[in-house]
Amino acid sequence: MAPHPLQILSLEETQRARDIVLALHPGTAIDFREIFLQEPTKADLKNFLDLEHSGYLSPTSARPPRLAKCMYDVIGPDRVPQYQESVVDVERGQRVAHEVIGKEFQATLTLSEFSTLVEVCKASKLFQDALAELELPEGFEIVIEPWPYGGLDPEDENRRYFQGLIFAQDTRSGNPDSNFYAFPLPLIPIMDAHKQEIIRVDRLATGGKGDGLSEKTNARKVLEHCRTADYVPEMLPNGTRKDLKPLNVVQPDGPSFKVTDESLVEWQKWRFRVSFNPREGAVIHDVHYDGRSVMHRLSISEMTVPYADPRNPFQRKQAFDFGDGGAGNCANNLSLGCDCLGVIKYFDAVIVGSDGKPDVHPNVICLHEQDDGIGWKHTNWRTGRAVVTRRRELVVQFIITLANYEYIFAYKFDQSGGIDIEARATGIVSVVNIDPGKTSDYGNVVNPGVLAQNHQHIFCARIDPAIDGHSNTVVQEESLPVPMNPKTNPRGNLYEIRQTPIKTSSFADAAPQNNRLFRIVNSARKNGVSGKPVSYKFVPPPTQLLLADPESVQSKRAQFAHHHVWVTKHKDNELYAGGRFTLQSTKEVGGVADAVARNENVENDDVVVWSVFGLTHNPRVEDWPVMPVEILQVNLRPSDFFEENPSIDVPSNKNVTSVEVQKDTCCKRDGKL
Amino acid sequence: MAPHPLQILSLEETQRARDIVLALHPGTAIDFREIFLQEPTKADLKNFLDLEHSGYLSPTSARPPRLAKCMYDVIGPDRVPQYQESVVDVERGQRVAHEVIGKEFQATLTLSEFSTLVEVCKASKLFQDALAELELPEGFEIVIEPWPYGGLDPEDENRRYFQGLIFAQDTRSGNPDSNFYAFPLPLIPIMDAHKQEIIRVDRLATGGKGDGLSEKTNARKVLEHCRTADYVPEMLPNGTRKDLKPLNVVQPDGPSFKVTDESLVEWQKWRFRVSFNPREGAVIHDVHYDGRSVMHRLSISEMTVPYADPRNPFQRKQAFDFGDGGAGNCANNLSLGCDCLGVIKYFDAVIVGSDGKPDVHPNVICLHEQDDGIGWKHTNWRTGRAVVTRRRELVVQFIITLANYEYIFAYKFDQSGGIDIEARATGIVSVVNIDPGKTSDYGNVVNPGVLAQNHQHIFCARIDPAIDGHSNTVVQEESLPVPMNPKTNPRGNLYEIRQTPIKTSSFADAAPQNNRLFRIVNSARKNGVSGKPVSYKFVPPPTQLLLADPESVQSKRAQFAHHHVWVTKHKDNELYAGGRFTLQSTKEVGGVADAVARNENVENDDVVVWSVFGLTHNPRVEDWPVMPVEILQVNLRPSDFFEENPSIDVPSNKNVTSVEVQKDTCCKRDGKL
Repeated sequence: MAPHPLQILSLEETQRARDIVLALHPGTAIDFREIFLQEPTKADLKNFLDLEHSGYLSPTSARPPRLAKCMYDVIGPDRVPQYQESVVDVERGQRVAHEVIGKEFQATLTLSEFSTLVEVCKASKLFQDALAELELPEGFEIVIEPWPYGGLDPEDENRRYFQGLIFAQDTRSGNPDSNFYAFPLPLIPIMDAHKQEIIRVDRLATGGKGDGLSEKTNARKVLEHCRTADYVPEMLPNGTRKDLKPLNVVQPDGPSFKVTDESLVEWQKWRFRVSFNPREGAVIHDVHYDGRSVMHRLSISEMTVPYADPRNPFQRKQAFDFGDGGAGNCANNLSLGCDCLGVIKYFDAVIVGSDGKPDVHPNVICLHEQDDGIGWKHTNWRTGRAVVTRRRELVVQFIITLANYEYIFAYKFDQSGGIDIEARATGIVSVVNIDPGKTSDYGNVVNPGVLAQNHQHIFCARIDPAIDGHSNTVVQEESLPVPMNPKTNPRGNLYEIRQTPIKTSSFADAAPQNNRLFRIVNSARKNGVSGKPVSYKFVPPPTQLLLADPESVQSKRAQFAHHHVWVTKHKDNELYAGGRFTLQSTKEVGGVADAVARNENVENDDVVVWSVFGLTHNPRVEDWPVMPVEILQVNLRPSDFFEENPSIDVPSNKNVTSVEVQKDTCCKRDGKL
Repeated sequence: MAPHPLQILSLEETQRARDIVLALHPGTAIDFREIFLQEPTKADLKNFLDLEHSGYLSPTSARPPRLAKCMYDVIGPDRVPQYQESVVDVERGQRVAHEVIGKEFQATLTLSEFSTLVEVCKASKLFQDALAELELPEGFEIVIEPWPYGGLDPEDENRRYFQGLIFAQDTRSGNPDSNFYAFPLPLIPIMDAHKQEIIRVDRLATGGKGDGLSEKTNARKVLEHCRTADYVPEMLPNGTRKDLKPLNVVQPDGPSFKVTDESLVEWQKWRFRVSFNPREGAVIHDVHYDGRSVMHRLSISEMTVPYADPRNPFQRKQAFDFGDGGAGNCANNLSLGCDCLGVIKYFDAVIVGSDGKPDVHPNVICLHEQDDGIGWKHTNWRTGRAVVTRRRELVVQFIITLANYEYIFAYKFDQSGGIDIEARATGIVSVVNIDPGKTSDYGNVVNPGVLAQNHQHIFCARIDPAIDGHSNTVVQEESLPVPMNPKTNPRGNLYEIRQTPIKTSSFADAAPQNNRLFRIVNSARKNGVSGKPVSYKFVPPPTQLLLADPESVQSKRAQFAHHHVWVTKHKDNELYAGGRFTLQSTKEVGGVADAVARNENVENDDVVVWSVFGLTHNPRVEDWPVMPVEILQVNLRPSDFFEENPSIDVPSNKNVTSVEVQKDTCCKRDGKL
């Protein structure tokens, strides 16, 4: 049986792609970055999926070719790598596309480049001399935390750089997980990745309010006022709390979902496919409910995390966690009983090393059901009959770790046709050293000597809808007051619903004061009850957009973060809101702003909707040492898509294992209550 | 042992209060409305609680008197009731306050008045004549749905009215829970409650787009195009879905919470009391975390549901679900295994009949723990060590049914010091008859012949904080862009946090574009790490405010619904955002707008914060016949209140009952993945 066109490349297919690339570059050293499925063109995929859903798919049906996107450096005789991308047909054994990427773009980083930075720092006299300016307490050792270089400063040459944030770890406990972030050192070494050498060590300002932007204290004993802040349970001074009793999710008859054909998930009238790639992590495809098409593709497209400390070089603390390093590359191996409860299905990924050899990266996605309280309820007060259903959700989750920080992403499907795209932010906030006793306008002191800098997290979810087919229109809808008037609003209680279809590719912003929402409609299909076009709607989360000055590099390279909603016409391979190459970018190229600028028709067309939302994160002391999750969601909801509540047939059975705390465990005062 | 001052009145105390009132009105008929605990004055309560928390409370300590608030009608010789309120000391057996309420105010309705309406309608020739104008299908019977009259129209006399929404039930199934809302009749009878007679029957317009505001079709066969829409499982045409497998929450060692002294809840460093009253439902008191005071009192204060259909008399469809009928009065008796899962503690209420005799209203509040996904996580990518904790919540929940509609309210406490106030809207949307084939600008056709009118739900939570004590200040905080400039923002990445303390009682609105939040600070207590005043913060949900014209009755009687945040100085008994008397009100009197108008100091004072949030609900077909929950939350979060993440000591134990779906249940293509 041939693999489904959306199934990720197998180990064998990946290996074959590697071999094809190597054969095309004989006698040359090749450093691989990524090999992963190049999804079929939408036209090809649509044909295949239509056939699949019609039930007429057979082993002899035409299938899109199995393509591998291969990203690699060709190492020249001068050892200078040239970045290239090839698409190879793994069945036919041939290359179908080849691109030599210009020097103006930087390839996505790989974790092996991070390892290089650590090695190069250790070997660098420049860095060791800078370190020698500082006096570390007894038993402390240096930890180098590799970071992308951020957006190039105007004075930077366009070379490939990496920077290291430097911390010290108290090794006296012998615990390799003692929290080194509590001991930040005011140094940032910069590596030229091609030369593999440290070209500069930036000395960081450690002042506070009233100190200038460039003041360095130059104190030798920069850690003297810092203090341990551990989070691993065995290092907590008072251990863990003892009064939390187990709460188990038990599914005696197994899960209600079914996973077949490796990637096909079926649950409660939903049917969709799950894939995974190094950049976007988990991706959801070809979503149907009860046989009707809802979404073609859902993904987290990009995110940016700009820091607001104006002191050089912190303007370059701005991560694009999907574009720079790849969310898929940074995905956690999830653990049974830790990352979710109940009956869990895990999905694996295939990754390649720099030699291109594939390996399994296990458990990068988990799939499970969860209970989310009451789904719907009505009590007929005349008869006392209550009908109450639970809100069961199916969760597709993946978690990424980027140095200090974690994001938990989930696609949640409910029983009433709703889909939530969720991001939880957790992990350790990014910190720098601050002088004893000082406070700062640029962040919050979360531990002595530790300044957590103010920053934003701005996410972009890419929603490629297929509301009863691919020809859709996005309609902006508002509820607006109507002035009292004798003719239409004599008592003043009327309000008006105003709809404005978006006809050419454009952006829009949240306006909760107007109850602004966006409706993705199929204007050719009318709801049999209401007579209105079938649709899914969403309210853009009205979170704060990017704050950086429009002329700043931070701002120019993250155009997507300037508006809440972007509506574009679908174009193959246009998946990345911040553009294909974000690493060291100074402006967004080929991102969603450029897609909008094509000024294309998006009425009754193959539209893509990009939803931007985020979090202005001015750290609290409570975010330290590991922050409690902050939760953000985009909620897609059917609206006149179905002809009744699709969860009306959810059973209202009593859960038989629930237990009441006996009334007599509480002392009743008068024996009657 | 004397009852705690916040403990609800026992059966005995209630009975005693009744007897005291009856003895004070000898020879007079008394119709009781409510008897419930009159909470102590804040001064008295504060003294008691300080003593309690100091550990020096003894059986001989002074206690606030046990007071009962008694609401009743004194029936005069002409049978015209006069509404009075008394506060009686149940221990001393004496009245401490007495108020004869003026005729300009209407007492909260009681459910027995609803029964009266049904009886009066049945006996009314006026109503029966109106009904006779309509021809009902064979086997259909009239159902009268009592409603408050809404805000008086300018031409109305101020008398006590009730209105009935009229439906027909198909009785042929013999099922008393067949959904009569699918068969709305275009009649509204109006009862004069004192005369106990139907004084008028309003004929409702049933037109659609293009029809005038007052057009009545006068068709006899108004139900001919209507269609069954059942929700009770035994009446669903295709039954319930079969593929949902059980998901059990099992707590083998019991709950982690403890309930003692009837109302005291202790869980995971939290300690608070729960009470219940006929108007507000469940109320949370005296909230401490780890021995530190956080909140004095949390309640849902009011909500209003104005309908936007401009056709007379729909301007009078505007419920105040707390003020008109009492959320506590309408609370559901919760059922094991239906309204929540796991180990559940229920609390009872005491209610009185019109004779004042008390009875137990069981299980009006449930208390249970639930799992809400990951609480915090960090993976040290160097060592591979992941520490991940679950987010356990403690939920205090109550559910109210108001005719067709349900609200699920919950106070949720988490392990990191957060409190969420949650409202879920569900139940059956309010509907009226619409002619065959028509659609309307005033709502959506959700079933043939059934128009669900556009409306809003606007809630107000009352937050009486006590952040390390009662002297608090509310500070508005925004994150604002700073133009690029060489001196303070050379690279353009800086943004500024601007704080504005609220000094005199006032209102404010959400401004998510500025990341506007409100911080409740104790300026006398500084965080030992950050040096900033300890605080809790919340972001007002930026939901749409009341849309009705400011000069409309709907708008004037719900001033609270015009702003997201109100900050007032605490005043005893000032609990109700929409005022003490909302039934038939034409303007808000004694509500939060009047409290603000006192222009009092609220800096370092005993402040109260009122958070207004809501839902503009333009019904979807999917909301029919019972709507999936819409979920709203206000999130209170510690911000520099603690000196680290208070959940850092939550154990990261692996859950031992979680189960992995075996990999081989999924067909692996090449046997390697």
